[in-house]
Amino acid sequence: MNETEFIAALRHLPLHEGARGLADDVAVLSLGDHTLVITHDMLVEGRHFLKGQDMADVAWKLVATNLSDLAAKGAEPLGVVLGYMLSAGDDAFVEGLDDVLSHYGVPLLGGDTVAGAPDGKGGQAMGLTAIGKAAHTPVPARAGARIGDAIFVTGVLGKAMLGFEALRDGTGADATAYSRPMARLAEGFDLAPLATAMMDISDGLLLDAFRMAEASEASFAIQGADVPVADEARRDDCLRWGDDYELLFTLPEGTFPPVQATRIGAVEARGFAPLFLDGEPIINSDGLGYMHK
Amino acid sequence: MNETEFIAALRHLPLHEGARGLADDVAVLSLGDHTLVITHDMLVEGRHFLKGQDMADVAWKLVATNLSDLAAKGAEPLGVVLGYMLSAGDDAFVEGLDDVLSHYGVPLLGGDTVAGAPDGKGGQAMGLTAIGKAAHTPVPARAGARIGDAIFVTGVLGKAMLGFEALRDGTGADATAYSRPMARLAEGFDLAPLATAMMDISDGLLLDAFRMAEASEASFAIQGADVPVADEARRDDCLRWGDDYELLFTLPEGTFPPVQATRIGAVEARGFAPLFLDGEPIINSDGLGYMHK
Repeated sequence: MNETEFIAALRHLPLHEGARGLADDVAVLSLGDHTLVITHDMLVEGRHFLKGQDMADVAWKLVATNLSDLAAKGAEPLGVVLGYMLSAGDDAFVEGLDDVLSHYGVPLLGGDTVAGAPDGKGGQAMGLTAIGKAAHTPVPARAGARIGDAIFVTGVLGKAMLGFEALRDGTGADATAYSRPMARLAEGFDLAPLATAMMDISDGLLLDAFRMAEASEASFAIQGADVPVADEARRDDCLRWGDDYELLFTLPEGTFPPVQATRIGAVEARGFAPLFLDGEPIINSDGLGYMHK
Repeated sequence: MNETEFIAALRHLPLHEGARGLADDVAVLSLGDHTLVITHDMLVEGRHFLKGQDMADVAWKLVATNLSDLAAKGAEPLGVVLGYMLSAGDDAFVEGLDDVLSHYGVPLLGGDTVAGAPDGKGGQAMGLTAIGKAAHTPVPARAGARIGDAIFVTGVLGKAMLGFEALRDGTGADATAYSRPMARLAEGFDLAPLATAMMDISDGLLLDAFRMAEASEASFAIQGADVPVADEARRDDCLRWGDDYELLFTLPEGTFPPVQATRIGAVEARGFAPLFLDGEPIINSDGLGYMHK
């Protein structure tokens, strides 16, 4: 099976009503007066990280990407649970885990440590579950953008791309944006009561805007020139490359964002395509995100 | 690093006070009036299951072992989060997942699906986080057995061993106890308010009793002949083999267990060894569990 087929097969299973995780990165679970937000990401050697990569950075990214999913739901992290296969670089992994958990003030709740395949041939794999408490309900989702809403994005896009290239080409330029991405937890927390839709743009602005428009059954009209980018000469790459972990969100017209963010477009009635970039329709999401993974 | 070293290294990290997970299989997290119990298990091809094994059974075991950890804490499962690497047998895996979730009435909350290593060489790995709500606080732990308590175990030990051997030797005998173990959720729920200490004996009665005695800073005196076993001729194997997922618990003298269970010994002041089997001291846990994994 491929991923789409597997997720489709899971739809027949007993699913929790808050099991948006199969399509929306997170699950939402009510418990008394509280609402939990739960996210899980898995990393595989050779696919999400490379043998020989700095495992401290891998640990950072594993945690930060999960926290970014919580940020997009306006959730405050309560802790993380680690599933870890022992391999080379364990010392560095623990160091990076310490860095990222200390940075965010998020505790390790527990987890499972396993040895790899006895023949030593299997690559390493690891998973992390992050558990957060929603600051506001209903928890913001991808679906929810309404006609007339303004579209915003936090930060400057393309920094991760430049970081990746610096690492790949050994230029010595700052690669932090790629190797140690930041989750927009404070911003997500402040935006949750206001945003009609919100998500992180880990797969690139255009692809994720396409998905949000589809989920909201609307069309997103984005002005490419309004998007803050890290490299003006490669604006289009910056709009397509992922790994920036900025927040894409929509606000009712006239609502001022309480965090630093840039207005990049407007939500329109569903037209010919889910996404219009500078007036040009984007009908198909194939190849919309930069294929860097 | 080996597992012990890795877990020791993690102790320097920001840990949640309820992060017993590093030594006690679960984490306990308070949230308003509720107490969450969180457990995570990871399975690796070649170590926890074999290429070609029925992936429906692997899915069952992945869920049941996590639910067993919740059972030992008297927690009611709220849902599970899956981290899954696509591989051969995905159809069967989904089928087994459906079976086990339907059987226990536990919903899938969400998760992450990833492709394996691009070269196809890496083995498969998967992880599951189970989240439960504690029926009673404080949540039963390994530590907590008090001098004078009676020691009990649920069920009949050695069934999983016989099932494993039936599968291995292709005898055609019933292997269900090994391939589709049952989590003692109802028993754990009923025992939580009464038990001074409780754990599941996934690693074998003697090894887990040794650990409980160590955690409780007491000595456990067990009468081997009192333990219900599936094969009288191989009583010692039945006491050492794991994978039975029965509950080991202690009750104050005079408290009658509200579930079917057998009294197998008593908690004594810490003596020469943590564990005494028929009066013989067991000083070291090395080789105490049957090394079948």
